[in-house]
Amino acid sequence: MTTGKNYLGNKLSAKGNKTYKTFNPELNTENEIVFTEASSEEIQQAVDLASKAFLEFRTISGKRKAEFLNTIADEILALDDELVKTYCSETGLPEGRAKGERGRTVGQLRNFANLVAEGSWLEATIDTAMPEREPMPRSDIRKMLIPLGPVVVFGASNFPLAYSTAGGDTAAALAAGCPVIVKSHPMHSGTGELVASAIIKAAEKTGMPNGVFSNLNSSGIEVGQQLVTNPKIKAVGFTGSIKGGRALLDLAAKREEPIPVFAEMGSINPVVILPKALENRQTEIAKTYAGSITLGTGQFCTNPGLLLAIKSDALSAFVNNLSQEIMEINPSCMLHPNIKKEYNSNKEKVVSQNNVSVVANYVSDVENNYAQQAVVVVEGKEFLENTTLHQEVFGPFSMIVKCEDEAELEQIIANLEGQLTGTVISDENEVADNSKVISALQNRVGRIIFNGVPTGVEVCESMVHGGPYPASTDSRFTAVGVNSIKRWVRPFSYQDWPNQLLPKELQNENPLGIFRTVDGIRTK
Amino acid sequence: MTTGKNYLGNKLSAKGNKTYKTFNPELNTENEIVFTEASSEEIQQAVDLASKAFLEFRTISGKRKAEFLNTIADEILALDDELVKTYCSETGLPEGRAKGERGRTVGQLRNFANLVAEGSWLEATIDTAMPEREPMPRSDIRKMLIPLGPVVVFGASNFPLAYSTAGGDTAAALAAGCPVIVKSHPMHSGTGELVASAIIKAAEKTGMPNGVFSNLNSSGIEVGQQLVTNPKIKAVGFTGSIKGGRALLDLAAKREEPIPVFAEMGSINPVVILPKALENRQTEIAKTYAGSITLGTGQFCTNPGLLLAIKSDALSAFVNNLSQEIMEINPSCMLHPNIKKEYNSNKEKVVSQNNVSVVANYVSDVENNYAQQAVVVVEGKEFLENTTLHQEVFGPFSMIVKCEDEAELEQIIANLEGQLTGTVISDENEVADNSKVISALQNRVGRIIFNGVPTGVEVCESMVHGGPYPASTDSRFTAVGVNSIKRWVRPFSYQDWPNQLLPKELQNENPLGIFRTVDGIRTK
Repeated sequence: MTTGKNYLGNKLSAKGNKTYKTFNPELNTENEIVFTEASSEEIQQAVDLASKAFLEFRTISGKRKAEFLNTIADEILALDDELVKTYCSETGLPEGRAKGERGRTVGQLRNFANLVAEGSWLEATIDTAMPEREPMPRSDIRKMLIPLGPVVVFGASNFPLAYSTAGGDTAAALAAGCPVIVKSHPMHSGTGELVASAIIKAAEKTGMPNGVFSNLNSSGIEVGQQLVTNPKIKAVGFTGSIKGGRALLDLAAKREEPIPVFAEMGSINPVVILPKALENRQTEIAKTYAGSITLGTGQFCTNPGLLLAIKSDALSAFVNNLSQEIMEINPSCMLHPNIKKEYNSNKEKVVSQNNVSVVANYVSDVENNYAQQAVVVVEGKEFLENTTLHQEVFGPFSMIVKCEDEAELEQIIANLEGQLTGTVISDENEVADNSKVISALQNRVGRIIFNGVPTGVEVCESMVHGGPYPASTDSRFTAVGVNSIKRWVRPFSYQDWPNQLLPKELQNENPLGIFRTVDGIRTK
Repeated sequence: MTTGKNYLGNKLSAKGNKTYKTFNPELNTENEIVFTEASSEEIQQAVDLASKAFLEFRTISGKRKAEFLNTIADEILALDDELVKTYCSETGLPEGRAKGERGRTVGQLRNFANLVAEGSWLEATIDTAMPEREPMPRSDIRKMLIPLGPVVVFGASNFPLAYSTAGGDTAAALAAGCPVIVKSHPMHSGTGELVASAIIKAAEKTGMPNGVFSNLNSSGIEVGQQLVTNPKIKAVGFTGSIKGGRALLDLAAKREEPIPVFAEMGSINPVVILPKALENRQTEIAKTYAGSITLGTGQFCTNPGLLLAIKSDALSAFVNNLSQEIMEINPSCMLHPNIKKEYNSNKEKVVSQNNVSVVANYVSDVENNYAQQAVVVVEGKEFLENTTLHQEVFGPFSMIVKCEDEAELEQIIANLEGQLTGTVISDENEVADNSKVISALQNRVGRIIFNGVPTGVEVCESMVHGGPYPASTDSRFTAVGVNSIKRWVRPFSYQDWPNQLLPKELQNENPLGIFRTVDGIRTK
């Protein structure tokens, strides 16, 4: 049951004065439950609980943390239809997507559970003493990763499950041993509360300290600001807009003690279509990309918002084909009226720039909150000169840039902001002939795709979801895959520490049987 | 031969108007060579060269980078007496220290050479395709670490070799594949130019692209500011004061594209002396610590500036003993008159605070630029209330805090700023009885030492030199040991990329024979 209250650790609380409701974009009506925004006092309570919980939580074994994470997954599945219905009512997304995203969320939790139950991820490293070394003896030094402290997670509008309350950031932080305070996304606070209830149940069932998790409702920016500037908060995870992410990064940087902020922000995900591929396969590419651009109403951070190619007859044919294909796709619902409003205004802003031609524009009437897809075309020279054209239009929109030649194509890529992904559509051997273009692209992105689409982010160890700014605020980390746990930990050394007082991971006997590096040799 | 000029890549240049000289603190006189500060134009040239060099350097194999690093080490050794003499003339440090630090510098370069020649450090990870997977096939995804781009390194005043021109930051960045621009430290620009000449020789001998390394003279803060705010610079390494490091961090955070800054800054390195150890061994501890406090004229970032213990007769005896021991140590030279000036004024500031007792103060005359050691004592309550007492006094100085009980000791530790190290002096089983104190200490430091001294930083894989702010600006990385290379790299994914076009590290055949994780299994 959804109460509209905040979770301050295990306790429901609603002492604030500000309330709000979520919105059903399919029905174009407000949902019934009234959510109470967390008050300043409640925020401080959640932070104090997290800070206290950290002292215990950071010493809890990997096996027990795994139990906690697996139980969260179980409890989320136990929410069953109520979760799916709430999700759909707050997002306009179909049931299939809700179930798919739930599967991904549960899968992520179990991946992290496996990781920490096993323990080799801690990078345990031992350099044994050399008492006889000349001119100075060497101490015994042992290192492993330890958690940073309480982490604040800002949920994403477009992933109410997989990148929100119990999503990738939360799962990674809990796995690392960091208590988590979620600033609930105002567009899906009901989904958020349900998932929070699952986490709290799991925490109680598995004996985690009270305060290991809190969930705070918010309709504006104040709750987030207060959390990020609280001295007891040690790191921040965020998925959302460049404006929002940068504001948090700036707040964190101005603190007396600056803290790391990992924000996964916007991306236009450039797609380079090489000449031969365009000549040989433009019909097929147009069909594939019409689908990718409109997938999930274009509301993916990996949506292909920029298609780059060199002028040719094949390119003209591709422009026509893509325009036709995309017009045949049925419009679909956006997450929220505000998201549609922003989509329209961003699209309008691009269309109103000089020398931008609209080649596809769905103008027929659509249901309330449904997005009308569009494709525009611009010359390379214009694109280079006008950086407004480089900004993301979040929704089913893409821009084709017609380049004069390979040199202009390379220059355009080199001048792009950092991106999550770059895609190369190529025929056999074409990549080798375009090495400068590929090299420039690699320099601007976190993941490069060959003959595919950027949408669809596989959750696996080799996935990088992140990239040069502003794709993310710290390209040295990924937001997807088990390595995302590295955002929330720091290395720690013990020097000449007595064996029995060391954490098990570093004891001589290797009681956990994990992989470790001992005197330079990786061993179990 | 030292010219006083800047290295813009391979070329010596001195177009600026501002000149300065270094100072010999032992002789209390200026050295002869005139250094010309880099002009704005020269700074931009160095950055442009680095940015261009990056395109080639980032593709150079680990084996060739290893050759480059080893040749730098050889060329530094070939500088022989000229380097040692210049070092001593610019620092007031003895020849033995110069040679020891040279050995460490050369050793670090060779460590990184071994690391990159072998290649397993790249965390190559492969998840092979599953075309038959339901409901969606899985793409082939492969990940490895790639360099960030041109890096600026700010040398340290107190490590003219090991943490300056070819020191840990530079060696790590070059090993990663990042071109480096060093902002030379004005106190040892002659040492810096000699080492720079060795790097340039090595770059030429091993065929590295021009611009892979530049060395810019500077006497003020402008050269550094211009470098950090240049859009082509992608990361910053710094060793020095909190004020200096924080200023660079703030500059980098305000850029349109914020960049990572790893600054290793101040630390007072708390030492907790537990009751039984104090009772049983106070004489020995006093002797050891008198040595550690004055080692290198107290000019180490791991200098023990804070000694914490619970009130007892043994503590009173220890205070007396330490005071006597430290007064018997011969004063020694500081790095520069300005460093001595700052030492005196910081010491004076602490001494002038309420309720601070000076128990040792070397007041006899000393040579010019020699430091007069001192020890002060304060009650725990006073220390808790007055954060001025928490600030580092860089030099042969330490403060003893007399705590009422274990609770006050724990509270004091919990309220400390982040520290590089924490030390526990303990008798058998005493640590287990003081778990709260140890836990609080672990939470504030990057390295914890049992029954030793914090001075002396072993260069090995398990060493962490860094810690919660302000010990360093990003506790997720270490500044010492081969893992410090992680500061300058980011993960990068290839999706469905043709095998022959992948970097060798990720090709099916594993032609480099490195350790990789393939479908979750670590393998060669």
